[in-house]
Amino acid sequence: MPRFFIAGTNLAGGMAILKGRDAEHVRVLRLRPGEDVILCDGQGTDYKCRLVYADKEQAEAEILEVVPCSAEPSVKVTVLCGLPKGDKTDYIIQKCVEAGASEIAFFLSDRCVARPGEPEKKLERWQRIAEEAAKQSGRGIIPQVSWAGDFAGALDAAIKTELPLFMYETGEREALNAVLEANKEVKTAAIVTGPEGGFAEFEAKLAKIAGLRVCSMGERILRCETAPVVAVSALMYATGNLG
Amino acid sequence: MPRFFIAGTNLAGGMAILKGRDAEHVRVLRLRPGEDVILCDGQGTDYKCRLVYADKEQAEAEILEVVPCSAEPSVKVTVLCGLPKGDKTDYIIQKCVEAGASEIAFFLSDRCVARPGEPEKKLERWQRIAEEAAKQSGRGIIPQVSWAGDFAGALDAAIKTELPLFMYETGEREALNAVLEANKEVKTAAIVTGPEGGFAEFEAKLAKIAGLRVCSMGERILRCETAPVVAVSALMYATGNLG
Repeated sequence: MPRFFIAGTNLAGGMAILKGRDAEHVRVLRLRPGEDVILCDGQGTDYKCRLVYADKEQAEAEILEVVPCSAEPSVKVTVLCGLPKGDKTDYIIQKCVEAGASEIAFFLSDRCVARPGEPEKKLERWQRIAEEAAKQSGRGIIPQVSWAGDFAGALDAAIKTELPLFMYETGEREALNAVLEANKEVKTAAIVTGPEGGFAEFEAKLAKIAGLRVCSMGERILRCETAPVVAVSALMYATGNLG
Repeated sequence: MPRFFIAGTNLAGGMAILKGRDAEHVRVLRLRPGEDVILCDGQGTDYKCRLVYADKEQAEAEILEVVPCSAEPSVKVTVLCGLPKGDKTDYIIQKCVEAGASEIAFFLSDRCVARPGEPEKKLERWQRIAEEAAKQSGRGIIPQVSWAGDFAGALDAAIKTELPLFMYETGEREALNAVLEANKEVKTAAIVTGPEGGFAEFEAKLAKIAGLRVCSMGERILRCETAPVVAVSALMYATGNLG
């Protein structure tokens, strides 16, 4: 069944009135009255509808069923990454959205080589990548991409979740396996990963003091753009969202 | 401690004699007698050595300790992917090696749009990508990249493992979560994923008849280059190899 995110559709009295970009979507998909379509509100709710009318300007659909989007994981994961070089940001956004992340943010840490320039300008492009990935993978929300500022900003965002995880490559750490096994019912979590050069020791120390769980993902060194995807996958698996 | 794969090093009588490319490695790393180095034999064994002599042609090191490489997972995972378009192959190889796969192979299935050309020519490049990723992530082996031929060839390779998993997007499937939870002690496994268009129904049927476990990774549609990485991550998590 065709499925798309609606922008400003009016949902009321059992009917969906689609105008503008939403009506255009109906046109592009060549939907005819009588055909069924799923309208996603971008907040995790799917409206199963049957089209009753469509012209160039407007379309109307009868709402048959309102259901939570089944593709949305039971856990809201915020991914926080030390700003990497080049287009690795794009890769991280696309893959983490597919894997099930609900929010992605970048920040500057001690060993970041990349410079943010004007992150506000990049945000628009990053958000488009998230939207594309959300559509393509059938997500029920469009994960937001944001700029978390500096390291302190990232820690602050992380500790607002129930399970803030800090991925670190050396020193005293908890095994990610063990931490996740003990938190299978978690509803919100954060995954903090470093830039190319990893985190500085003082950053790991700060993270721990701030209440984050400093975790190891094993002895293999993951690239900065690989670590968040592997961690989100593990978290989805542990919380029963992969299958 | 510096760490590199050795090619033809002679390991005998408590000494490692490095020539050719191996001696060059010592030179490039500017190692001096008295310094320690880890020599990986590419079969999962690490030799902790102390350099005793080095000139342009040859280096000699005393073997201090012989240990299994701690970065090697306890499960050998073979990743089998329907040939994707463009450089997605490179991406799959790099990320799956980092995530812990032991072997990667591509094959042609019904919906492959990409054409293999002369896969033998590509194999050399693919193998180099695997080698680079293995070095970078600190693996104890260099995973082999191969060409599995057609769909039947892929099934044949998969069923040689204890746990052959077939990722499929629709129809009757087992949840990957449930299958992995019941197989935490597995020593060899295969992950079979499709090309851009996924698998045809008859291919899923054939896979099931051949003894593969047809699995779902949830309602999110993963891109053909994302699915193998997510699946390997889940398998590493389930078998206690992430942390």
